[in-house]
Amino acid sequence: MTKTQPGNFFEDFFVGQELVHATPRTVTDGDVAMYTALYGGRFAVHSSAPFAQALGYARAPVDSMLVFHVVFGKTVPDISLNAIANLGYAGGRFGVPVYPGDTLSTISRVTGVKQNRDGTTGVVYVHSVGRNQHGNMVVEYARWVMVRKRDSAAAAPEVVVPELPAFVPPASLHVPTAFAAGAFDTRLSGSPYLWDDYTVGERIDHVDGITIEETDHMLAARLFQNTARVHFNQHVEREGRFGRRIVYGGHIISISRALSFNGLANAVGMAAIHGGRHTNPSFAGDTIYAWSEILATDALDGVAHVGAVRVRTVALKDRAACDFTDRDAAGAYDPCVVLDFDYTILMPRR
Amino acid sequence: MTKTQPGNFFEDFFVGQELVHATPRTVTDGDVAMYTALYGGRFAVHSSAPFAQALGYARAPVDSMLVFHVVFGKTVPDISLNAIANLGYAGGRFGVPVYPGDTLSTISRVTGVKQNRDGTTGVVYVHSVGRNQHGNMVVEYARWVMVRKRDSAAAAPEVVVPELPAFVPPASLHVPTAFAAGAFDTRLSGSPYLWDDYTVGERIDHVDGITIEETDHMLAARLFQNTARVHFNQHVEREGRFGRRIVYGGHIISISRALSFNGLANAVGMAAIHGGRHTNPSFAGDTIYAWSEILATDALDGVAHVGAVRVRTVALKDRAACDFTDRDAAGAYDPCVVLDFDYTILMPRR
Amino acid sequence: MTKTQPGNFFEDFFVGQELVHATPRTVTDGDVAMYTALYGGRFAVHSSAPFAQALGYARAPVDSMLVFHVVFGKTVPDISLNAIANLGYAGGRFGVPVYPGDTLSTISRVTGVKQNRDGTTGVVYVHSVGRNQHGNMVVEYARWVMVRKRDSAAAAPEVVVPELPAFVPPASLHVPTAFAAGAFDTRLSGSPYLWDDYTVGERIDHVDGITIEETDHMLAARLFQNTARVHFNQHVEREGRFGRRIVYGGHIISISRALSFNGLANAVGMAAIHGGRHTNPSFAGDTIYAWSEILATDALDGVAHVGAVRVRTVALKDRAACDFTDRDAAGAYDPCVVLDFDYTILMPRR
Repeated sequence: MTKTQPGNFFEDFFVGQELVHATPRTVTDGDVAMYTALYGGRFAVHSSAPFAQALGYARAPVDSMLVFHVVFGKTVPDISLNAIANLGYAGGRFGVPVYPGDTLSTISRVTGVKQNRDGTTGVVYVHSVGRNQHGNMVVEYARWVMVRKRDSAAAAPEVVVPELPAFVPPASLHVPTAFAAGAFDTRLSGSPYLWDDYTVGERIDHVDGITIEETDHMLAARLFQNTARVHFNQHVEREGRFGRRIVYGGHIISISRALSFNGLANAVGMAAIHGGRHTNPSFAGDTIYAWSEILATDALDGVAHVGAVRVRTVALKDRAACDFTDRDAAGAYDPCVVLDFDYTILMPRR
Repeated sequence: MTKTQPGNFFEDFFVGQELVHATPRTVTDGDVAMYTALYGGRFAVHSSAPFAQALGYARAPVDSMLVFHVVFGKTVPDISLNAIANLGYAGGRFGVPVYPGDTLSTISRVTGVKQNRDGTTGVVYVHSVGRNQHGNMVVEYARWVMVRKRDSAAAAPEVVVPELPAFVPPASLHVPTAFAAGAFDTRLSGSPYLWDDYTVGERIDHVDGITIEETDHMLAARLFQNTARVHFNQHVEREGRFGRRIVYGGHIISISRALSFNGLANAVGMAAIHGGRHTNPSFAGDTIYAWSEILATDALDGVAHVGAVRVRTVALKDRAACDFTDRDAAGAYDPCVVLDFDYTILMPRR
Repeated sequence: MTKTQPGNFFEDFFVGQELVHATPRTVTDGDVAMYTALYGGRFAVHSSAPFAQALGYARAPVDSMLVFHVVFGKTVPDISLNAIANLGYAGGRFGVPVYPGDTLSTISRVTGVKQNRDGTTGVVYVHSVGRNQHGNMVVEYARWVMVRKRDSAAAAPEVVVPELPAFVPPASLHVPTAFAAGAFDTRLSGSPYLWDDYTVGERIDHVDGITIEETDHMLAARLFQNTARVHFNQHVEREGRFGRRIVYGGHIISISRALSFNGLANAVGMAAIHGGRHTNPSFAGDTIYAWSEILATDALDGVAHVGAVRVRTVALKDRAACDFTDRDAAGAYDPCVVLDFDYTILMPRR
């Protein structure tokens, strides 16, 4: 008998199963600094305590994606250690702000299982909820992954595929603070453009590019306590499909979000993740660019100070974003597209 | 209309213009740890809270150059995004100590403009002031940069070139604390040499060398929220003049300052930056060495516990500093010289 | 006269000599975050403040090896700057827990000197004690290193070789907290296996591998303020024995300890280091694996909540640990073995 955790295989999952993920994580000022060094984020609400306090936050809240990565990292040993592919996200919703000093932990519930035809793999659907030390939800999301079977001869379970929302409706978004009109100082935030200024269909080239190094993405994944093996082990990956380590998909999301400051500077955090696809793998040496399209601008019932901006951010590798490279007419992604991310940010209104 | 900030071009600047730079930055223990990991500094006053408290500091103050980099980083999007060259610094003065938890922001005033002869570029002179959340000056400096014109046909502005001090006089230096003779424990600080022991003309080989990696300098620049593109984008720089990313000049200053511990260990912070030139670019793979020359040792009026030591630190790449490689007789820098930095540190007196 | 510290040579050491090492170091949440990013540790007691508090800690204590590295780093400028080889460790004992905010400093006493036959080097034995700001011991250990002589003609000192313990007896281990049975939540810690479940002779393959990058090990050594030159200077090392920078041996220990989570997840800190050998050098590009053997499981007198598990962890480079590669019959290490580390962890009892 070994004391090593082998991770779960497809036949270990069943609908209704609750997975209490190991190792709660106290997030500190140190994690925030490391996150800044990795991505260079400049969103004022995360960068400056007085700026955040003027908006009603207790202090500068932790960037939404750092929260997501920590909560997500907890799930890897139980859900995706034997995964072949991360198939999708849906219904992601951010809850109460996370401050340095808060401790995050994650519990997942299996909501669906569906064996694949060849009998060696299956799709597992989970709903994961990250909470702080008070039990308050900080982020929750549905995810589905393709997982290996331990024993291909094991019987296929009854197929259960959960209903997943196409998007998170504005009415269910969590609005973390309320602040007076004018409390948001656009001289300090770096952009004059507020919720009212964005229009559906508008596209923004985020201009800059960031080249990924092996150390960067490994420091990030370790910071998030994400143990997926493909990110860390060149000795094995050298013999693998790509001959090299694969960058954690969330690293690309965080780079894209940092790049999006140039055009979406007044985001006061993310409110929802409607969906996300890592359309191609990224590797050290790739330079990541990003562009965004405004999908919707929703006023929120009873909320005067912020509105919701639904954004689709597309990340490219080794291709400047000025051409807004995307899918072709048949829907196939250009090989330079590495991320197609559909989410909602909150922005101050005039 | 784009919502992306294109940065200012030469014709956007005018004398008297005030630039309120975006994104105040709360500096934390996390930033200090990252800075230590990047440079390995060992100056006792920044490394140990009890050591600093024995000298009258509230706690360990943040290294002067980390303060400078954060304040400087704020100015990049407005001043040097379209810069071709960073021409010089003058009149740099450090103010009140910065402690973790303080929030820094920067305002610059344009003090001069001078179009270059070919009509495509001009020199912009600014005076930048970094302040903490109480409005107290933490560092201020003059800087001049060569900036592209948006439209080479635009009319040249009236030439204004400000008077810049050759050096910051000792009488105007800020002395952050007062402590009793003997409060500074040289067993703990790592060197027996105090202000009284340094003599004008003395040269010090700082012995050690540090090799730069791509990740290092990018982590640093992102930590400082410095967005200058040449540091981050290999996809573009591959086609550029050097074929590779250029290391942020401030990274070389911080490496040199960390190396200078071996010979100048008892510095209790910097008080002034008289001038600085990045005489050659640095790249990943370069090994940086440094040597220093004592330019002046000034007693300060009414100050018994510390004196000023004006130092010229010269950084070299891929050349040990034992030969004190420098300019030739005609004043031309040896190609291995990457930095010529003229500044003042404070040191305890006997 | 130079103001640069040249380090001590063999003839500078004498038995009974006390070395007060420079630069105390305040350890912060920032250091902990950097350590997490470097190694990806997931031990619950270090990762979560509430988890640690449930066990009686004031908050999450700093990982034992981070404490060791900081205390050890202080000794380098005085003891091993002119060392040729780090020969061994013995009698390592951890004391009171270290929390962010504590300030560590180190004092060493020379316990033995023995010149080597060729007259150019000698072995120096020291006993180093790290203490917090209250004077409480946080870690102490004996170490012996081979150090160059400044002058090979200098007379050999009287040979003194101290008695070194083969291992630290369980009765002398420091047990930092007492907690009630059941206070340790194995759902959150990531493993059901407690002290009672480990058996002498049991071997554990820690499965995962981590590839080292140049930046990683240099960030680590700088974080620990370890100034040993071989880690940092490619310009010199290019001409050296290996043609490249050598990874700090402690970096391999920390990687191995992080890997050991998978099999030894319920360690609540280290209590002793009985011995350690860096059997081969490691370099950037190496992928580190580790396996462990249980050497002893000792109940502790009057201690009901934890027991001691003595572990031998062997780290390999570019060889999966599933074969438990080790010494050959003649006692010679396989070239892929880079570390043989003998230590004791504390683990909750049922």
